[in-house]
Amino acid sequence: MPSYTAPVKDMQFLLHDVLKVTEAGIEGYADLDEGFTSAVLEEAGKVASGVLAPLNAVGDREGCTLENGVVRTPKGFKEAFEAMKQGGWTALDCDPAYGGQGLPYLMGTAVGEIFVSANMAFNMYQGLTHGAYSAIHTHGTPEQKAMYLPKMVSCDWTGTMNLTEPHCGTDLGLMRTKAEPQADGSYRITGQKIFISAGDHDLSENVIHLVLAKAPGGGEGTKGISLFIVPKFLVNDDGSLGARNAVSVGKIEEKMGIHGNATCVMNYDGATGWLLGDLHKGMRAMFTMMNEARLGVGLQGYAVAEAAYQNALNYAKDRLQGRAVTGAENPDAPADPLIVHPDIRRNLMEQKSFVEGARALTFWGAHLIDRSVRQDDEAAEGLISLMIPVIKGFQTDKGFEMAVQAQQVYGGHGYIEEWGMSQFARDARIAMIYEGANGVQALDLVGRKLAQDGGKHVMAFFEMVKAEVKAHDDDARMAPFAEALKTASKQLQQAAMFFMAQGMKNPNAALAGSYDFMHLMGHVCMGLMWTRMARAAFTALDEGRGDADFLNTKIATGRFYMARQLPACAMHLARIETGADPVMALAAEAF
Amino acid sequence: MPSYTAPVKDMQFLLHDVLKVTEAGIEGYADLDEGFTSAVLEEAGKVASGVLAPLNAVGDREGCTLENGVVRTPKGFKEAFEAMKQGGWTALDCDPAYGGQGLPYLMGTAVGEIFVSANMAFNMYQGLTHGAYSAIHTHGTPEQKAMYLPKMVSCDWTGTMNLTEPHCGTDLGLMRTKAEPQADGSYRITGQKIFISAGDHDLSENVIHLVLAKAPGGGEGTKGISLFIVPKFLVNDDGSLGARNAVSVGKIEEKMGIHGNATCVMNYDGATGWLLGDLHKGMRAMFTMMNEARLGVGLQGYAVAEAAYQNALNYAKDRLQGRAVTGAENPDAPADPLIVHPDIRRNLMEQKSFVEGARALTFWGAHLIDRSVRQDDEAAEGLISLMIPVIKGFQTDKGFEMAVQAQQVYGGHGYIEEWGMSQFARDARIAMIYEGANGVQALDLVGRKLAQDGGKHVMAFFEMVKAEVKAHDDDARMAPFAEALKTASKQLQQAAMFFMAQGMKNPNAALAGSYDFMHLMGHVCMGLMWTRMARAAFTALDEGRGDADFLNTKIATGRFYMARQLPACAMHLARIETGADPVMALAAEAF
Repeated sequence: MPSYTAPVKDMQFLLHDVLKVTEAGIEGYADLDEGFTSAVLEEAGKVASGVLAPLNAVGDREGCTLENGVVRTPKGFKEAFEAMKQGGWTALDCDPAYGGQGLPYLMGTAVGEIFVSANMAFNMYQGLTHGAYSAIHTHGTPEQKAMYLPKMVSCDWTGTMNLTEPHCGTDLGLMRTKAEPQADGSYRITGQKIFISAGDHDLSENVIHLVLAKAPGGGEGTKGISLFIVPKFLVNDDGSLGARNAVSVGKIEEKMGIHGNATCVMNYDGATGWLLGDLHKGMRAMFTMMNEARLGVGLQGYAVAEAAYQNALNYAKDRLQGRAVTGAENPDAPADPLIVHPDIRRNLMEQKSFVEGARALTFWGAHLIDRSVRQDDEAAEGLISLMIPVIKGFQTDKGFEMAVQAQQVYGGHGYIEEWGMSQFARDARIAMIYEGANGVQALDLVGRKLAQDGGKHVMAFFEMVKAEVKAHDDDARMAPFAEALKTASKQLQQAAMFFMAQGMKNPNAALAGSYDFMHLMGHVCMGLMWTRMARAAFTALDEGRGDADFLNTKIATGRFYMARQLPACAMHLARIETGADPVMALAAEAF
Repeated sequence: MPSYTAPVKDMQFLLHDVLKVTEAGIEGYADLDEGFTSAVLEEAGKVASGVLAPLNAVGDREGCTLENGVVRTPKGFKEAFEAMKQGGWTALDCDPAYGGQGLPYLMGTAVGEIFVSANMAFNMYQGLTHGAYSAIHTHGTPEQKAMYLPKMVSCDWTGTMNLTEPHCGTDLGLMRTKAEPQADGSYRITGQKIFISAGDHDLSENVIHLVLAKAPGGGEGTKGISLFIVPKFLVNDDGSLGARNAVSVGKIEEKMGIHGNATCVMNYDGATGWLLGDLHKGMRAMFTMMNEARLGVGLQGYAVAEAAYQNALNYAKDRLQGRAVTGAENPDAPADPLIVHPDIRRNLMEQKSFVEGARALTFWGAHLIDRSVRQDDEAAEGLISLMIPVIKGFQTDKGFEMAVQAQQVYGGHGYIEEWGMSQFARDARIAMIYEGANGVQALDLVGRKLAQDGGKHVMAFFEMVKAEVKAHDDDARMAPFAEALKTASKQLQQAAMFFMAQGMKNPNAALAGSYDFMHLMGHVCMGLMWTRMARAAFTALDEGRGDADFLNTKIATGRFYMARQLPACAMHLARIETGADPVMALAAEAF
């Protein structure tokens, strides 16, 4: 069975050597000294390794069941959820006004990675609740906040997000669920929602559904959509639970993975709901939470890959098979360990360099969200909005790819469920699909984000990369990083210019290259992160701080990424520059 | 539920316009006229669509069960297997001396693709039997052939291959299963074998296991290994079934996919076996079947992708979501079909151009095997041996990737088992692992095949590509093909020269780039195939033969591959030329 150990040392390096959190001047960051963050992360790691990871395979095998309208989670989930609540882990970065601990989002992200790596399906119950908490916290009335937030911060009540319907996922304008206003100010919600993660279960006393629906008078398409709070049990004025609402689980979907999470069809049959935020502004309310939600999914991409990598590495060190081509390294045993073989090394280095780069990118993204939210920093807000589709799309594509590569290290055993590597690949697969399929992320990036605010944010991104490249002119050790980053970022700029030149004349030319652009930008972001990490590692070495072995390994891992992975940028550029013609040559009937 | 239609038109184009089988001068090929091959393929298509495809999801859902030592296949498999036998499909390319129809291996390959696309797990029962048939046909005594082959041709008896043990897969020198010679000329076989596909089941009267084991006196490592025939039921001299042999199923593995096939742990407890081929030459006997076995797995890679593609295409045409960026194409409906979106097109074109290219490469490979076996053509034998790791490794990697992309077209529905797209991805995954994991294919290619016979075969390959590039100097329509192929093949040569320059000095430098080389060569092979297909399509158009729509679509699909996929070659070359350093920089303990 797979095991998991939280990568606390790597996280500490990011927080203190790369992001230098205590000097960042962001509200709440001054408290994040090394001792404090280390204590939090170590403690989270204990829960992850001891409580959550052992339940990962159980959740996969048992799945959730629906009997007589009641959803049951796998054995042990209820006790583990209780332990998470008791440990205060559900309240980490929530508002102290409602019982939260008020830590920065960055700390919630670091701890979140640890829990996702240990048990992605389990962590979704809490993750969805956090999303619903954020929506109510941002858009709720004072009464709504007082009624729902304390119970959601503690996870006594959990939350869900209801967007998709059988005939519409991405195109929410086709939505049919309707909301009819009632005399008492409430709405009657009627319709069917599908793919509702954590839709119902036995972990909490109540489930607070946030439901998108069409209320009269808003007009066609997405304009008429509003957001509603629809609790499973109505809440009395004194906060106690009242009658069961007219919402029920139609079925639990059989999925490829994340079996431990109940993905439900939810039927609203005239359920009582209350408007959250402004009437007919439901899409906007959803969008304000989108950065955090999508960063959270991008995190799942590499967090599952981290867990898969740890196990692949252990297997590569333990499993004896064949001999090193340069001579036996384990002469007293019948064979050498897998890790002596160059192609196994290539595979492991690809995993390691991706996971560490993605962690850096995600932590940096979380720090930008803190800067945006806590400091009202518009530049940070613009930058993270630009990067979100990259973090979500690139990291989940690569995270799945790396989980598949980790599985490959096990040979035939990787295909046998008992060994647990298949689950990592199957679980990671969903992150490419939900919260906006990755093709939609690419469309968002190229069709919206590049041009947003007159292209201000992408220009700022290019300036930042340029500054990073120039910062190392006087350090020959940094040349492999700065030069590769420079080449890659020029390729990215050239791709962006190609899109601009095609512009409005030929929008298909840009969109035909959108997926490649997302990956090209992903590699540039990773190159930027590796350059920063290498600089931080050299600095620490120069100053005699930290663990020299760790720092030298960090630099070597970064060199691998720059040398072996950034060459993908030229390929993506070449593809992009073929424009729309090869992609759109055929009429639909010709396929 | 997914559906499947055999791509008979594309197969006919390959057989008659590209390979021109009736003019090939290979024994048995003259009979393969258009009418005959069309009739065979259409008939196979009917069985595939009507009988096998509907059982694909059943097999996935039910899997195989082991109760009281008896293995049961999913409901309907027995009847379908009977239909395959009655239709003569198991005997297609077998020796007429033992009841086969004697068709070329190429025809067996084409029909095999159809059956694999429809139901990969089901087809493995017959596929493994064919492999065991080939081994006995090549290495058996006249008595062994007479005893086993007629029943295996008809699939009254099925076959298996037993190589892997719990502690050794790739490194068979570690094998522990032993064979003790008996006074009557038989051997007592004792040991445990794992991952035995079709290891036991209820589809046939007997199962003929081919088992690798160590007989005394052969020396260390793989040298001492011999191959044995170990029937489930001993066979009496009159051909009737005798006593149960001491071989039993330890368990059926729970796998990620191909649930319809029983992957067994087989326990040999002093089972009676007979030597097949020469004593202590078991590895060599296995290797003679390796080309066919690995081509068959390379076929699975694209055959499953073909089935996944067909369904993704249908979904993209049916599912209404969003509007074309260039204006509504379906103005009377609430939305346009998915296929109007450029990124969906990109995705579909990647699938289509891969599958058709891989089909061409596989058919060409099968034709080379026929040329090698039926004409004793050593150049063909050398060429196919060189290409086999590419066909197996590249096609199964890409086949899985494309099945995942097909799943992605379905959005959230792709993750739900009910829709069947997850199964394609899960089933396709195994082809990257078994019959030599793809890292081992890359090692075989770079470590053995490139240098084989003094590099003669790879030089012949380069000459062939060069001739193909030159053949189109006078046809401007072919320029996009010839130029891209020329660039890519130069990159492949440069990579091969890099390996040679590193040579014996630094074997890790070549092996660190082996995986990239396998993919680089895969793209060059695909480019070669697309160039040949384009030429054949232009010729047919010029001569007014064939379906002009089909031929123009073929050319456009090829242009897509050359423009959008061949740029990967430069990336692989750049990675290769970084050598061993980035890959091997870390000590094993530093990970």
